[in-house]
Amino acid sequence: MSESPIKFELLHIDKYTGARRGRITTRHGVIETPVFMPVGTNATVKGITNDQLNEIGTEIILSNAFHLYLRPGLEVLDYYKGLHNFMNWKKPILTDSGGFQVFSLPNKKFSEDGIIFKSPLDGLEIELTPEKSLNIQNVIGSDIAMVLDVCVNSLSSYETVKESVQKTFNWALRSREYHNNKNQALFGIVQGGLYEDLREISLKQITSLDFDGYAMGGLAVGEKYQDSEKVLKAFGNKFPENKPRYIMGIGSPTMMFLSVENGMDMFDCVLPTRMGRHGTALTMQGKLNLKSSKVRYDDQPIDDECDCYTCKNHSRGYIHHLFKRDEMLGKILLSIHNLRFNISLVEKMRNAIEINEFKYFKEEFFRNSGYSLTN
Amino acid sequence: MSESPIKFELLHIDKYTGARRGRITTRHGVIETPVFMPVGTNATVKGITNDQLNEIGTEIILSNAFHLYLRPGLEVLDYYKGLHNFMNWKKPILTDSGGFQVFSLPNKKFSEDGIIFKSPLDGLEIELTPEKSLNIQNVIGSDIAMVLDVCVNSLSSYETVKESVQKTFNWALRSREYHNNKNQALFGIVQGGLYEDLREISLKQITSLDFDGYAMGGLAVGEKYQDSEKVLKAFGNKFPENKPRYIMGIGSPTMMFLSVENGMDMFDCVLPTRMGRHGTALTMQGKLNLKSSKVRYDDQPIDDECDCYTCKNHSRGYIHHLFKRDEMLGKILLSIHNLRFNISLVEKMRNAIEINEFKYFKEEFFRNSGYSLTN
Repeated sequence: MSESPIKFELLHIDKYTGARRGRITTRHGVIETPVFMPVGTNATVKGITNDQLNEIGTEIILSNAFHLYLRPGLEVLDYYKGLHNFMNWKKPILTDSGGFQVFSLPNKKFSEDGIIFKSPLDGLEIELTPEKSLNIQNVIGSDIAMVLDVCVNSLSSYETVKESVQKTFNWALRSREYHNNKNQALFGIVQGGLYEDLREISLKQITSLDFDGYAMGGLAVGEKYQDSEKVLKAFGNKFPENKPRYIMGIGSPTMMFLSVENGMDMFDCVLPTRMGRHGTALTMQGKLNLKSSKVRYDDQPIDDECDCYTCKNHSRGYIHHLFKRDEMLGKILLSIHNLRFNISLVEKMRNAIEINEFKYFKEEFFRNSGYSLTN
Repeated sequence: MSESPIKFELLHIDKYTGARRGRITTRHGVIETPVFMPVGTNATVKGITNDQLNEIGTEIILSNAFHLYLRPGLEVLDYYKGLHNFMNWKKPILTDSGGFQVFSLPNKKFSEDGIIFKSPLDGLEIELTPEKSLNIQNVIGSDIAMVLDVCVNSLSSYETVKESVQKTFNWALRSREYHNNKNQALFGIVQGGLYEDLREISLKQITSLDFDGYAMGGLAVGEKYQDSEKVLKAFGNKFPENKPRYIMGIGSPTMMFLSVENGMDMFDCVLPTRMGRHGTALTMQGKLNLKSSKVRYDDQPIDDECDCYTCKNHSRGYIHHLFKRDEMLGKILLSIHNLRFNISLVEKMRNAIEINEFKYFKEEFFRNSGYSLTN
């Protein structure tokens, strides 16, 4: 077991739930957990400058090996000495392996070593293998790389999920073997869909390998809340205690509470920025549609408890006007607010965990907010 | 003659040209001249936050009575107590009267009191009169309002321009008479197209009325450089010396130099932001196309002499990538840079005027830059 490029400290576990308060130290700085990671798919969090990301308390961003491989491409990333330098982001970066993106494409098929798909940009055939994904992430120079996994949708048959678990393990083995970057942590990914015995197998297989952290994959892919809840309750706290635990692709308040309660430390989601671009704000009182004419004469900020640039400077009515005129600034202001909402929420969770009040904080949140506890 | 809501100080005139260094004091702060005014048509400079506007040295923005009348509409602007409060912009605002916008529409016709046109939003007939334009600008609460004028294109016949001059004078008279807002300056607009005798008449008519400033209208509407040069040389310094002089709708380096050289103090243009959104950067070495694959491997800033956020933080190659992926951040970063380019250029002009080196500065600029002296 070689020394990990990151250090994880488990600072505290909430007395009444599985919620964890931790700290990850990387070469690009410290990440307090639980942490929400804004998504910067194309080497940019859509519409947001690095200064704005820093201002809202971003500690780490997520980017995508798959998208960066297509554009700008490895030659460019190599020329600029990696993604940090290319986009001038000085804090940690985690990269997804491309698994989720490739499996979302039509017409992919397994090859002997990996998976073959058609580039969504030009239709040319591309093969992605566990080793190639690591090569890409190596050029990107992310602080945390993910293994290539086989992600299936939540309606898949038992046989399909079983095969995906087996291949995911095989690819994880090859990835662990192949990875050779002392500056980059590598996380394994547990699959198994909604089948408890397959989750159990995948968890044992993946955690038998010495990764720097472990991720729960294959959730937030269309299943019901109750199904993700079942998986998280059964397996969240079976992940190794001394390593970061990352649940991929979640970011709604409901799912963040559920994940943290069951021992998860990290999550990412395009939801805050995507909803922002479409005119919906996240607030402590629930979702707010800024396109609705109801807010035309509303001179209040989106959320008067929020400390973001948008809420400190602009009214709901002004943002409504910007959306009516399809002005970029509307999308920018709402993206800033929604990202800050998520980051601020995990900051509050951290405080609640530290004083063993996570359960109370969660109950309060759902009592007072417009969010459903179950979706 | 009542007291003006703004104060204009003529600080210095360049010894060898007509270039003026001045200062306008308004209720919302001081504007040093020459000044470039970013355009915020729909109550937002496209893609740019107020913080970013301040950071690049914006001293005043321009907005449009016509667009704001259509959306958000007067009821909303009235509810929010004017545009400053609505968009939370604390510095001066100048509003155009709607003249230029209405005359750009098809199917408009003169009514007895003003002009009738179809709303580009819903096709309903709207009448705009000099008085109504002032009512709108009154609700907006701009620091400087413009009179409604008759703007014709540069190819118009002598008869058409003559009529436009007459009507412009008539409307200016009515506007001067009607305007009754002690907190708002009112500027008259000189028309006359490219006909020197009509320009002469319009200048005499408009400056016979006691406005707080005077504008040169009807240029930058498609005419050749040589034609605008002729008008500016002949009439720029015939404008009253003790009032601000505003040339409407110009903002290219070439036209800014020409205008300042001939005694103009203020200008506005959508060019920097529009070019920015389309991938073109203004630099001291000329225009730079960031969409071109030539800059794919270019790790230099857009302009290494520029002090803007974009140039301090990002490379040409990164911005190229953002445009390739149609990412909002590309448009934002280039808009910031281009606005800063124009503002920085007028700041340099001010310094040059103060030491009587405007002519030298202009010659240097055109010797070293990629801009043509004549377009």
